[in-house]
Amino acid sequence: MMQTMMQQVSTIAEMRVHLKDARRQGKTIGMVPTMGFLHEGHLSLVKAAREVCDLVVMSIFVNPLQFGPNEDFERYPRDIERDSKMAEEAGVDFLFTPEVSEMYPTPMLTNISVANVTTPLCGASRPGHFDGVSTVVNKLFQIVQPDYAFFGQKDAQQVAVVTQMVHDLSMPVQIVPCPIVREADGLALSSRNVYLSADERTQALVLSQSLRQAEEWLSEGVALSTIKDRITQMISEKPLADIDYVEILSYPALTPMAQETAGQTIIIALAVRFGKTRLIDNTITSIK
Amino acid sequence: MMQTMMQQVSTIAEMRVHLKDARRQGKTIGMVPTMGFLHEGHLSLVKAAREVCDLVVMSIFVNPLQFGPNEDFERYPRDIERDSKMAEEAGVDFLFTPEVSEMYPTPMLTNISVANVTTPLCGASRPGHFDGVSTVVNKLFQIVQPDYAFFGQKDAQQVAVVTQMVHDLSMPVQIVPCPIVREADGLALSSRNVYLSADERTQALVLSQSLRQAEEWLSEGVALSTIKDRITQMISEKPLADIDYVEILSYPALTPMAQETAGQTIIIALAVRFGKTRLIDNTITSIK
Repeated sequence: MMQTMMQQVSTIAEMRVHLKDARRQGKTIGMVPTMGFLHEGHLSLVKAAREVCDLVVMSIFVNPLQFGPNEDFERYPRDIERDSKMAEEAGVDFLFTPEVSEMYPTPMLTNISVANVTTPLCGASRPGHFDGVSTVVNKLFQIVQPDYAFFGQKDAQQVAVVTQMVHDLSMPVQIVPCPIVREADGLALSSRNVYLSADERTQALVLSQSLRQAEEWLSEGVALSTIKDRITQMISEKPLADIDYVEILSYPALTPMAQETAGQTIIIALAVRFGKTRLIDNTITSIK
Repeated sequence: MMQTMMQQVSTIAEMRVHLKDARRQGKTIGMVPTMGFLHEGHLSLVKAAREVCDLVVMSIFVNPLQFGPNEDFERYPRDIERDSKMAEEAGVDFLFTPEVSEMYPTPMLTNISVANVTTPLCGASRPGHFDGVSTVVNKLFQIVQPDYAFFGQKDAQQVAVVTQMVHDLSMPVQIVPCPIVREADGLALSSRNVYLSADERTQALVLSQSLRQAEEWLSEGVALSTIKDRITQMISEKPLADIDYVEILSYPALTPMAQETAGQTIIIALAVRFGKTRLIDNTITSIK
């Protein structure tokens, strides 16, 4: 059995050299941008990438630009040794792990912002967050020049923002959204789940439970505004839950819906704090 | 004698197909982004490109994003037939001439802005101008994926902005600034020169004349603030001249200089209106 070892690369220059070779050989490059502390959600992206690409590059970079001043950049969980093993086992060819000083050697003067899709949801709660995301994703794409890039739908708004940027700038990459991966009990996988206490963890199940309920109500023809109220009520009943938002919007434009048209794609999106931990979850579905 | 004909391409998809072929053959791609109405300044960029690249792509696109609401987007001079002949004779391989609807088929929601270097000079007089420039240049680079891109130093601040963006986003392209091309009497070539009346054209010579004077004063050790005052005086004496700015800044950072250090690279930059026509000129030099 022949298996190529994964290579870990931490400089932009070295990354370019490897990928130039691969590109010259006509290999299709798939990219999985992450902030590390990998879980099955990330590995599902690698799996999807392996299916369509000859070569898979995963980046692990906790990007300071996308954290607000009072957010968890410093304490965001990191474990590069464990990540490296998991990435290799999943079939990653190149693990790109630049330091902040490699990505931003001088003050970053260039900012990319995407209008409209960044206005509601996490864009409203986390000012500047999506500027940081679109800027770093643009830069990672310049470095790796992937043919395909794989993103989890848990960050559905991020997918919408990156897709809009790629469209607007005619970036030569195809964005591939992949389904949310959940624990057996329904909790959406997130690197931030490690922050949760046992009680918070139990009560956080209300996110996926309310989304499942919402899908049922939707199929029964309950009005969106009523569904929104019921979800809000369900979550509010959990004493440790502090709602940031409960929203139902069109997807991927993320605009409010003037009227409910059957067949229209919508997102039901939640952000809820449990103690210091902010969790998000969503379902993308359609009006019946 | 074998000479390949220039190909004119107006869609992004067709442009990509041609360049994918070229890239597969290992050809180096040089790009000359322009707004058309070509003059010898543009052709000098093509010449520079031919010297280092196997293949030269010129784009002609009058980019609405970089014009303010009261600027000359509508009346900006256009002559694609003449441009096409000149480009072919200069040795352009592909002339990319997209319509606005091809570049911006849906409302452009993505904006790229570069801080600091866009603050003074034309950035102060033309709000949003450099956002339009960096956004369209980023998009053109995504479409053409050039190895080298050639820009005239007449738009010295544009060169600084694009260079900063390319650095910040690790774009895989080398920016090559090329010297200003002037008429025999010193007037810097510009597509906007056609707007000038005979009187305006004559008085506009004060721009290059004052810059030449400034270089002399500089070599005589005259203080920068005095040089600035003298240039302002010289230009003010022309009855048709309406000064937008006269500035001496560090280059390429474009910051004011707290102290004058010998050897420091500086730009002496001018923007002056003659009637409805706004002309710019500059010299990049150093403190003696």
